[in-house]
Amino acid sequence: EILAAVRSTLSGGTGLRGCRIIVTAGPTVEPIDPVRFISNHSSGLQGYAIAGALAARGADVRLVSGPVFLPTPPSVQRIDVRTAEEMKAACLAQLPADAAICVAAVSDWRPETVSSRKMKKTAEAPPVLSLRENPDILATLSHVAKRPALVVGFAAETDDLQSHAEQKRRRKGCDWLLANDVSRHPFGGQKNQVLFLTENGTESWPEMTKPALAEQLAERVVAFFQKQD
Amino acid sequence: EILAAVRSTLSGGTGLRGCRIIVTAGPTVEPIDPVRFISNHSSGLQGYAIAGALAARGADVRLVSGPVFLPTPPSVQRIDVRTAEEMKAACLAQLPADAAICVAAVSDWRPETVSSRKMKKTAEAPPVLSLRENPDILATLSHVAKRPALVVGFAAETDDLQSHAEQKRRRKGCDWLLANDVSRHPFGGQKNQVLFLTENGTESWPEMTKPALAEQLAERVVAFFQKQD
Repeated sequence: EILAAVRSTLSGGTGLRGCRIIVTAGPTVEPIDPVRFISNHSSGLQGYAIAGALAARGADVRLVSGPVFLPTPPSVQRIDVRTAEEMKAACLAQLPADAAICVAAVSDWRPETVSSRKMKKTAEAPPVLSLRENPDILATLSHVAKRPALVVGFAAETDDLQSHAEQKRRRKGCDWLLANDVSRHPFGGQKNQVLFLTENGTESWPEMTKPALAEQLAERVVAFFQKQD
Repeated sequence: EILAAVRSTLSGGTGLRGCRIIVTAGPTVEPIDPVRFISNHSSGLQGYAIAGALAARGADVRLVSGPVFLPTPPSVQRIDVRTAEEMKAACLAQLPADAAICVAAVSDWRPETVSSRKMKKTAEAPPVLSLRENPDILATLSHVAKRPALVVGFAAETDDLQSHAEQKRRRKGCDWLLANDVSRHPFGGQKNQVLFLTENGTESWPEMTKPALAEQLAERVVAFFQKQD
């Protein structure tokens, strides 16, 4: 922890001054009725660490966050949302931006219909929940008219990591994709291990803490914008 | 807050010494696949306050809790669970008990099948989620062979509060039911307002903080066991 703090201080600075960066984090929550919902596991730890690491380098960070129990990192502007639709709208409202880093675990689906009253348990068969597709925020930001120069996604996979991740990076149209195997690194843990995919190929990053991964990614973002200048 | 603390200290004591009381709190979480789940809104605040108020009166409290972000109250023994099935098993494992107070927001339904791998988004139609009924923990504890002398339930309703609550108390077979209108007192709030239903009728309790409601309920529990002696 001391090492991480020292590294964070040393590696802070002004490398991203003048850059606006959208970061999404946490889960989305999709209502079924006033009391029930569908969601995904996500502590928000990785996204919040990335938002903090970018802000420590001078970026103007807009953290679009689903419901989590985490303090907002220093100098980060946080926008709270619940559903995928709300998260998409909040992201688009932050454009133009130089980069977008989509760490949130967005629900792929939401219930087709939302009951305004609590669904009652009846003697009959339990309900069947028809789902409809949610907006794909990563793909949207990768193809929007005012596209950020750098769009980065995260992918949680449980199997066939590299091939699923390669397909996903191309399909979404993002520049970088960080893919992790959530069957080996459970949600809410302090550590992470990812494949880092770009158009130039795949790097396998070693296991590290989520703050350390945030620092490493932030350094890559700094390098990207230095090359752009 | 000072008043609540004073009241809590004054009203503590030994009125429930020797009583084992099961309290359930928080939501349950029902997996769809390794990353997705169905759940209900529940901060756990009310259940935790009740557990604390009972323990402050000397009860041996077994708090069976879904995932929440709350500290365990002093002198309370906490058992963490995730699903309704786990919560039911944990409650039954605490029997025999003198009372059971079911505050948890248990999912009425869970997905019929749980995918061991993350469900992929495909070009085809979104999945349809077949649900099956979860065990009814309140009804189970109300009818179990080693039934606690006092079984208390909570009901969150969005409409037709009194009639839904009366039906629910009879159907579940519990002694007392506290019913609140969650459309007027949103989840996660600090206050609560309930109807208190027994076989003798219905009391309408005024709006109060969740700790104050916990104190009032704990006093009723003390009175119940004093009458039993």
